[in-house]
Amino acid sequence: MTMPKTSMPRRERLMSDYSDLRATTMALCDPLEPEDMVVQTMPDVSPTKWHLAHVTWFFETFVLDRSGRPYAPFNPGYHQLFNSYYQSQGKPFPRAERGFLSRPTVDDVRAYREHVDSAMLELISDSSDAVIERVASVVEVGLHHEQQHQELMLMDVKHVLAKNPLRPAYQSKPSLVNTSVPSMQWCSSTGDAVRIGNKTAEFSFDNEGPEHEVLVHPFELASRLVTVGEYLSFMAEGGYERPELWLADGWELVQRENWRSPLYWEESEDGWRVMTLTGLRPVDPGEPVCHVSYYEADAFATWAGLRLPTEFEWEYAAKGRSIAGTFLESETFHPQSIGHLGEAAEPAQLFGDVWEWTSSAYAPYPGYRPFAGNLGEYNGKFMANQMVLRGGSCVSPKSHLRETYRNFYYPQQRWMFAGIRLAR
Amino acid sequence: MTMPKTSMPRRERLMSDYSDLRATTMALCDPLEPEDMVVQTMPDVSPTKWHLAHVTWFFETFVLDRSGRPYAPFNPGYHQLFNSYYQSQGKPFPRAERGFLSRPTVDDVRAYREHVDSAMLELISDSSDAVIERVASVVEVGLHHEQQHQELMLMDVKHVLAKNPLRPAYQSKPSLVNTSVPSMQWCSSTGDAVRIGNKTAEFSFDNEGPEHEVLVHPFELASRLVTVGEYLSFMAEGGYERPELWLADGWELVQRENWRSPLYWEESEDGWRVMTLTGLRPVDPGEPVCHVSYYEADAFATWAGLRLPTEFEWEYAAKGRSIAGTFLESETFHPQSIGHLGEAAEPAQLFGDVWEWTSSAYAPYPGYRPFAGNLGEYNGKFMANQMVLRGGSCVSPKSHLRETYRNFYYPQQRWMFAGIRLAR
Amino acid sequence: MTMPKTSMPRRERLMSDYSDLRATTMALCDPLEPEDMVVQTMPDVSPTKWHLAHVTWFFETFVLDRSGRPYAPFNPGYHQLFNSYYQSQGKPFPRAERGFLSRPTVDDVRAYREHVDSAMLELISDSSDAVIERVASVVEVGLHHEQQHQELMLMDVKHVLAKNPLRPAYQSKPSLVNTSVPSMQWCSSTGDAVRIGNKTAEFSFDNEGPEHEVLVHPFELASRLVTVGEYLSFMAEGGYERPELWLADGWELVQRENWRSPLYWEESEDGWRVMTLTGLRPVDPGEPVCHVSYYEADAFATWAGLRLPTEFEWEYAAKGRSIAGTFLESETFHPQSIGHLGEAAEPAQLFGDVWEWTSSAYAPYPGYRPFAGNLGEYNGKFMANQMVLRGGSCVSPKSHLRETYRNFYYPQQRWMFAGIRLAR
Amino acid sequence: MTMPKTSMPRRERLMSDYSDLRATTMALCDPLEPEDMVVQTMPDVSPTKWHLAHVTWFFETFVLDRSGRPYAPFNPGYHQLFNSYYQSQGKPFPRAERGFLSRPTVDDVRAYREHVDSAMLELISDSSDAVIERVASVVEVGLHHEQQHQELMLMDVKHVLAKNPLRPAYQSKPSLVNTSVPSMQWCSSTGDAVRIGNKTAEFSFDNEGPEHEVLVHPFELASRLVTVGEYLSFMAEGGYERPELWLADGWELVQRENWRSPLYWEESEDGWRVMTLTGLRPVDPGEPVCHVSYYEADAFATWAGLRLPTEFEWEYAAKGRSIAGTFLESETFHPQSIGHLGEAAEPAQLFGDVWEWTSSAYAPYPGYRPFAGNLGEYNGKFMANQMVLRGGSCVSPKSHLRETYRNFYYPQQRWMFAGIRLAR
Repeated sequence: MTMPKTSMPRRERLMSDYSDLRATTMALCDPLEPEDMVVQTMPDVSPTKWHLAHVTWFFETFVLDRSGRPYAPFNPGYHQLFNSYYQSQGKPFPRAERGFLSRPTVDDVRAYREHVDSAMLELISDSSDAVIERVASVVEVGLHHEQQHQELMLMDVKHVLAKNPLRPAYQSKPSLVNTSVPSMQWCSSTGDAVRIGNKTAEFSFDNEGPEHEVLVHPFELASRLVTVGEYLSFMAEGGYERPELWLADGWELVQRENWRSPLYWEESEDGWRVMTLTGLRPVDPGEPVCHVSYYEADAFATWAGLRLPTEFEWEYAAKGRSIAGTFLESETFHPQSIGHLGEAAEPAQLFGDVWEWTSSAYAPYPGYRPFAGNLGEYNGKFMANQMVLRGGSCVSPKSHLRETYRNFYYPQQRWMFAGIRLAR
Repeated sequence: MTMPKTSMPRRERLMSDYSDLRATTMALCDPLEPEDMVVQTMPDVSPTKWHLAHVTWFFETFVLDRSGRPYAPFNPGYHQLFNSYYQSQGKPFPRAERGFLSRPTVDDVRAYREHVDSAMLELISDSSDAVIERVASVVEVGLHHEQQHQELMLMDVKHVLAKNPLRPAYQSKPSLVNTSVPSMQWCSSTGDAVRIGNKTAEFSFDNEGPEHEVLVHPFELASRLVTVGEYLSFMAEGGYERPELWLADGWELVQRENWRSPLYWEESEDGWRVMTLTGLRPVDPGEPVCHVSYYEADAFATWAGLRLPTEFEWEYAAKGRSIAGTFLESETFHPQSIGHLGEAAEPAQLFGDVWEWTSSAYAPYPGYRPFAGNLGEYNGKFMANQMVLRGGSCVSPKSHLRETYRNFYYPQQRWMFAGIRLAR
Repeated sequence: MTMPKTSMPRRERLMSDYSDLRATTMALCDPLEPEDMVVQTMPDVSPTKWHLAHVTWFFETFVLDRSGRPYAPFNPGYHQLFNSYYQSQGKPFPRAERGFLSRPTVDDVRAYREHVDSAMLELISDSSDAVIERVASVVEVGLHHEQQHQELMLMDVKHVLAKNPLRPAYQSKPSLVNTSVPSMQWCSSTGDAVRIGNKTAEFSFDNEGPEHEVLVHPFELASRLVTVGEYLSFMAEGGYERPELWLADGWELVQRENWRSPLYWEESEDGWRVMTLTGLRPVDPGEPVCHVSYYEADAFATWAGLRLPTEFEWEYAAKGRSIAGTFLESETFHPQSIGHLGEAAEPAQLFGDVWEWTSSAYAPYPGYRPFAGNLGEYNGKFMANQMVLRGGSCVSPKSHLRETYRNFYYPQQRWMFAGIRLAR
Repeated sequence: MTMPKTSMPRRERLMSDYSDLRATTMALCDPLEPEDMVVQTMPDVSPTKWHLAHVTWFFETFVLDRSGRPYAPFNPGYHQLFNSYYQSQGKPFPRAERGFLSRPTVDDVRAYREHVDSAMLELISDSSDAVIERVASVVEVGLHHEQQHQELMLMDVKHVLAKNPLRPAYQSKPSLVNTSVPSMQWCSSTGDAVRIGNKTAEFSFDNEGPEHEVLVHPFELASRLVTVGEYLSFMAEGGYERPELWLADGWELVQRENWRSPLYWEESEDGWRVMTLTGLRPVDPGEPVCHVSYYEADAFATWAGLRLPTEFEWEYAAKGRSIAGTFLESETFHPQSIGHLGEAAEPAQLFGDVWEWTSSAYAPYPGYRPFAGNLGEYNGKFMANQMVLRGGSCVSPKSHLRETYRNFYYPQQRWMFAGIRLAR
């Protein structure tokens, strides 16, 4: 019988968490050829092997190099190569050129991971409780950081495979089709001064705090996500041709990039098809629409005479609900139809499936304090020009998510699994 | 004795307001040569004669063409040429190519203005009260719109003249130098649920409403604007070389554009000099720093261990205060030193001198409704990627400003007269 | 009775030539408004007032500043502002930003010209014969240089006016239409070792020498230029859609820029129309096709199963022929139909009307020596990536042209008056 | 005992040539990891596996698909994927995105090669003499084509490895250092009307013909290539900072790209170092300078008061000389010092080591006819904007070279092994 983790002593639990999570990352690479792990198809995308190395670099840089114990880096050249954006750690290798690096090879990166894993496990098992106490919080950040990169790896591999005219699939498991969807209902909330943000003892990122009060006015939230079928209606009614539906920056982008559908859709003689991690197939009207930008989400809401929720409305509606939905662990790697809803109008699909664009710009909460030290660059410096998304997606690890979690992307980005929930 | 305007009948007041404001616009061109009025030095800048024609097009398109009375357009080709961004009015002439238009000439544009002015004054004087009632609100928008362009004309002419190595001055009046500045003090506010936005009978833009409650936490606001002298200290301590002070997008910009100072500053053997509308001269440590981007304002605040106010904090602090400061009417066209403050710590310089960057992204207020009809594009479609500025500047007409007024610019822009007020 | 210039004494002739040519330049500006003279519609285009000042700068810099006589520059700031590309004279003002300069105004530039003209005429009239001897050759280069800019002024004004949706005309004189064109005939030349280049006592540019022998193989040259009608056939047969007709770089450009016709053509319901210096009008099938790039000329020849001549073939065919055709002096500012040819098949239209693309890359002749001193940059440094054009155009001054004259442009450029003569 | 190939019957010789050359290509990949074969570091570079597939596509498309015998393509999707630039074969996959393709994998490409090799060898061994006669010339083009790609593979791999801060080496064999170099001497040629181009029965490319007479004036050619030591002198005397040495387009490029040395050089505390296929090491003053653009070659010649030869002068000087030098077969993959010259001043190093820039633009010879049919796109469409290089390099297969061979690159390119020979 496996002992439940929560009852393990801290040291053992940390070692177990570390080992499990690192193994999960490698397992995601099983369907990939070495060639798949090298390619970078746009500046936002990183090669798989870069992700594998970067999350390892994180532990090396922020734990091992600072542990007080002797540690020999696997390769000193990696320090610059796998620094993503930490200016405090020297000038990072240019992001747009990560796909220029054929070396280290995938096997080299595997060896790098093993080198660091040994050192990490040795550190945790051999250190005094005081040292554990000191490093545990950084290790924890490192684990949550690696979970973020598990999601990024799948987003990026999808982009790489989709760019290829041969349309290779990441895995062959078909995604289920369920065209019957319950009609959208409205879940009312009375406004209030509500507590927003995290103050639990559990791990959370710095940008989730401090907890504070926000005045939320009465609102209604849609009971489910917007479906592909509903989005097809928007398209059929000239959604991509009517400037009055769009924010000015969005319309400019639609014109410049000639957008006519969500990312990964392509028109064929038999109608719209969509590239998924299980290959190219017809779009399913019943599943949540995915891979839309903020501009598309906003234009859709305008077309519908509705709006997107604020992040505070979303968090208020999600408060206390269980983390249920489609996550990385399901291995479907695609958002799923909701099936049917219960009788009472309760918001469903809040977690998993697709990240939900909110109308809130990503900004610090009142009294926001970045993580101490070198990790201060983790979140705060991105608090401009980005919008908050909430809830998580079908490629997010379930344990990574919570009601206070704030994800953020630029309004033009759409290679993440992002969809639409309406409010009014 | 001139009758105060407020006691005039509505029709007469409208005619008087219209004539005065249109004359003010033309008076701003007095120091300019025709050549100065043609040039466009970056896509954000428009030629003076384009401004003169566009504000006229506004009355022609939204008032005269819809008045129900016969109206012969001055030149049908102008309909596309001087449409700024109203997609409902057809495809606007490309913004970045406004400086490609040598025709209509400045004299042609003067004739266009006279043609429209005659028709406007005739319309107002000859129409029934019912018609006046119907058009008055659009005329009012048109007048406030032209005030905005009075400010833009001076911003743009400054850019044109400053790009010229001969450094021509718009006017010769010297700006006063007052190096003695009172020390910055902190004005405390207790938090509260405060009413934000406009609900008066007076004119306001759609983006200032609806009035609604916002929870403002206790805060302190600086008693005056940040000075050039304080900004020089930031620069001297490596402000432009330390990535840890900057938002990521800002740092990227600083590197790419090689920013080392505010816009219009240049280094000489005798120290920093600044280009103003009265020519090139040494910087004055006592005057408010101006022509900084949001990124620079934010980096300065980070360096100082402080922050920028939210737009709600700003409005709360400004509530009920009189509109005092340096405005367009002073004809200094440059922000002025504060001189001395009263004994009590009250926030000064809230209006005029320089627009004050807030940390609030430009977003709709809850329940926001755009202007009806074709003017719906006026404000709403820009509610992405921009930040709110408050208060007004030395090139804003005084009557254009109020405590609920929301200006907005992209965080990278700095050719407007924008400065810094700190909060904590 | 006017004394023929050739019998004048050298000093008087130089003064007369100088005055006449400078006056011709100003006369070309008569139809222009100040606004027309400021605008730059692409980096290749310069504002008229820049041309007026630059040719003046040439005399100031290369004659007056070096004359040995005291000379006070009109404005020291002009030295950088109106330097086109002479690195020996300091860093030129950026070419693409010439349209950013509102000052000096057109009137300022007129005064600059008068200042320099006075000094020049005084220098010539008052100097010793020895000094005249020394400066005369540079003055002569300056005059030929200004003739080149007369042509450029008209090319550039055409581009400025054509960019304007109002389609203003430079002058109202209609261009004649003559749709009857004689059929193309072939003029044979037996190959030979021929003398190429200039060795006369008359003025020529450095790139026309030294005279040398080139082996020209037997060839045939078309008796006239390719007409608009013939070019319309090329277009009708998919000329712009068939990659096999195009050089690879040309095809890439056609795709990227979406070229579908020569420059200044636009399709209307009534067929193709063309913008000219006398306004927009239907294309005339009988007139020479104009404003085509090298790529278009080459693709047309490939489509016709023919080729372009080399510059040596062209010069060989032109040797000894009189300079007849349509030039600047005709004030038509547009290439003219040939009307009828004589009975014998002799190549017509060799001079004037349109510059003729040759298949020769612009390269130095064996033993080429640049002009001495600062003028060494005049021609030689452009001998890469450009193609030679021969003959002259309807906006070239007649006295500027000769059989050895080598004009040169990049293969993608087409705002000059360039057309097609075929060979086989 | 191996039968010399020339005495083999045609069919056997073709099979033997085919097998040998295809094996050579694969052998060049022995030192590479799969990851090295995927990456594209600039648009000019192609991934190794793309080269391997493209040369195979060439045989599939131009031989097997047209052989009249049944042939099942390995994968129909490859037809577009591995088309380089043949518009007649449909729209090629975008060149700049070749590095986006993770699939087919290297192993897939190996299988593709084997599939095509079987079919090719079967075709040759089983076909009638008449069929052999028909296909042999295309097979021959295919083999010479693959030799070109052998050179390209090494050029491209060098670029990929050099972009990597870890500086991986392709192979470890050290390149020899020989700092003693004989002084440059001048080899005189009297001018003449000389026969240029190929008319032998042996294979040559279409651009080498037809043979024709060119008048070559008396000239002198340097007895050896310009060395690194000589190039260091150019650099020491401000070669990269003096605009008067450069063609205008070259100077613009030097400024924009901040060039300060040949490609692959980097400055260290111990002086200049150079990246080679055997790793990073100090520059060797005695070896030929390599990886310079046409602009650098021309600027060097101008600095030296000399010039580059025309391609006709080069061919005239090379006529009848044996193909001696450093080629691909030496496996040094780097140009070698000349060691010593014979007593008589004869031009040495004409073949191999580095391609020699000539001052001749790449243009068709008089009467040029492209290869018939689909191969017509092979050479002709590139005859604009490029310059001719002669002689071959240390990564050219020896049997690929001859005195009439014309290589061509854009004047700004320098990732090929190109160097400098002077003339006067």
